[in-house]
Amino acid sequence: MTDRYAEHRAIARDLGVDAIALVPGSNFERLYNASFGSHERPMVIIIPVIGAPVALVPNLELLSFEALGFEGAVFDWRDQTGYSDAFAAMAAHLPLTSLAVEGQVMRVFVHHALATAYPGLRILDAEAQISGLRLRKTPDEISALTAAIRLSEAALAETIAEVKPGMTERQVESLLVAALFRNGADGLSFGPIVAAGGNAAMPHAHARDVAIAPGDALLIDFGGRKDGFTADITRTFFIGHADDRAHQVYDTVLRANMAGHAVTRAGVTAHLIDDAVTSVLEASAFADYIRTKTGHGLGRDVHEAPYIMRGNHEVLAAGTVFTNEPGLYIPNEIGVRIEDDILVTDGGALSLTEFPKDLTVIS
Amino acid sequence: MTDRYAEHRAIARDLGVDAIALVPGSNFERLYNASFGSHERPMVIIIPVIGAPVALVPNLELLSFEALGFEGAVFDWRDQTGYSDAFAAMAAHLPLTSLAVEGQVMRVFVHHALATAYPGLRILDAEAQISGLRLRKTPDEISALTAAIRLSEAALAETIAEVKPGMTERQVESLLVAALFRNGADGLSFGPIVAAGGNAAMPHAHARDVAIAPGDALLIDFGGRKDGFTADITRTFFIGHADDRAHQVYDTVLRANMAGHAVTRAGVTAHLIDDAVTSVLEASAFADYIRTKTGHGLGRDVHEAPYIMRGNHEVLAAGTVFTNEPGLYIPNEIGVRIEDDILVTDGGALSLTEFPKDLTVIS
Repeated sequence: MTDRYAEHRAIARDLGVDAIALVPGSNFERLYNASFGSHERPMVIIIPVIGAPVALVPNLELLSFEALGFEGAVFDWRDQTGYSDAFAAMAAHLPLTSLAVEGQVMRVFVHHALATAYPGLRILDAEAQISGLRLRKTPDEISALTAAIRLSEAALAETIAEVKPGMTERQVESLLVAALFRNGADGLSFGPIVAAGGNAAMPHAHARDVAIAPGDALLIDFGGRKDGFTADITRTFFIGHADDRAHQVYDTVLRANMAGHAVTRAGVTAHLIDDAVTSVLEASAFADYIRTKTGHGLGRDVHEAPYIMRGNHEVLAAGTVFTNEPGLYIPNEIGVRIEDDILVTDGGALSLTEFPKDLTVIS
Repeated sequence: MTDRYAEHRAIARDLGVDAIALVPGSNFERLYNASFGSHERPMVIIIPVIGAPVALVPNLELLSFEALGFEGAVFDWRDQTGYSDAFAAMAAHLPLTSLAVEGQVMRVFVHHALATAYPGLRILDAEAQISGLRLRKTPDEISALTAAIRLSEAALAETIAEVKPGMTERQVESLLVAALFRNGADGLSFGPIVAAGGNAAMPHAHARDVAIAPGDALLIDFGGRKDGFTADITRTFFIGHADDRAHQVYDTVLRANMAGHAVTRAGVTAHLIDDAVTSVLEASAFADYIRTKTGHGLGRDVHEAPYIMRGNHEVLAAGTVFTNEPGLYIPNEIGVRIEDDILVTDGGALSLTEFPKDLTVIS
């Protein structure tokens, strides 16, 4: 019988610690294919190098937790009495002297509860190793991510078919989110960015009650979530017409995006991809308007490893998915970004995003 | 001149620690009226009992951070070189032997970085005290929260006017999210629940591609976010007609909701409110179908203190906002919940939610 904890036990063994702890979040969801809110109630699974795991679970989550087919002892606790007795009982059941945790997911109150229940416990941050298990997506994970991307693209196509000059950014955003849920999203990857003209050059632009004018570029950065996976796509359209300068900016960004696509394959570094993309922007007449690195990993989290930037000499393996999202941002004038979700394969880049990238004028 | 850190310094003084640390999140947003993503990059403000605060900030956030008018030294760091030197420089600038942190917000990697930069530092979890500053809403905060509630109610009214028997749950959800953004939401408080018939009796129901049938109850639990505040509203409608049993379930839940409203005023405990609400449900023919406590605090976070449940003997002060959301959930048959956002005042409960609660049949 396969041990679903084999990878976690191997990490603990490599780090020389007694066990790995997981709390609700993307690593937990990958392991159990189920999600739990964390909020104010501690919930933690401990996976030792050898033997059965143990779990500490809020009583009100117990029914949902039992559906996971958990293999070990479960220590539950109720709001009325608090969680310290459950931590103590867990510590008595499974003594530990060292424990590796997800440093960017576990919060201090859980760390404190563990340190209290296990006096002298050495707690190690193994975020990179534990979340590293999510770097290479399985075929099922790629299917789920692709489904989120497909429904997002369908929503974008339906939205663009309805956009007319004179609509406000907010009206376009409203059409877009409706189309996302209509096409099967169960949530948003993030609050969408729908920004025209100079607003698209602002970081973290929010949609305004401002009409889109002829000649504006309209930047749409968005994504739907489905079954735990998040799409993240940007396209930039032009309203009514695009002048020569708009064409130049757009073509520069598109060439940068294509350069990133061209150099990607299993075995290259994140540095190399960002360097290829950013070099195109730097060599252009718009070098002063670069604002960001090329992209980030994508999967259960909308921002996850690997980060595609110069200086990151991490080698990308087949099965990695990242965003390739160069942009140029000219204050008070225009913002253009073109973002694809790229699967790394041995043969090269495979864009999971299929929405056309030719300069498109909406009239 | 007013010291915007006076409350934080008082907490540190009361706890006998040298300083308070804040990381991005609702407490940070309340203090600076600005939000920062945290993700994988540590950012932390340290507020000592006396003297200027210090900040550790990712270089790429520096421009946005400078807009806060921060009063003290800023230690920035870049992805390429990492953050340990910045933590060490901060520790040299502001020595500390003890520090209170937000235990449910700060993550372990920041805790580790602080413990490394300050050897022997005593780190105390002051979540209750620091987040406790958000319990009593200011008039400006009540206005902002009310604005999020009003736009959500407008969206619900527009959605209900369009719902017809035969539509699927997913179509209704799509109309609802469109209406939220059209009415000015800048995000969703959470992925809405739109569930009819037996689906409304499931915890964490997701909208399905299933048509709403005559006689179904249609439960809609949703909220828009705006300017950092989150609405959280539930109404349950009936499609085509409501039979006697549906009337009985609905009336029971409505009486429980009204009982909660009736007993609320500044000075009562969370226990007393839940007891009043739950006693109505327990005294009914549907006592077997209670699933949850009465509610939770509401503000910048969609779930925050105080938790309205038996056993919580916390006294509610004027300015507290909580959800009053009794429900009954009969498996495979019906789910009814009626949820208002309640402001506690000296004179009693003021419902910020004004959407009608009379049993409504959609035909």
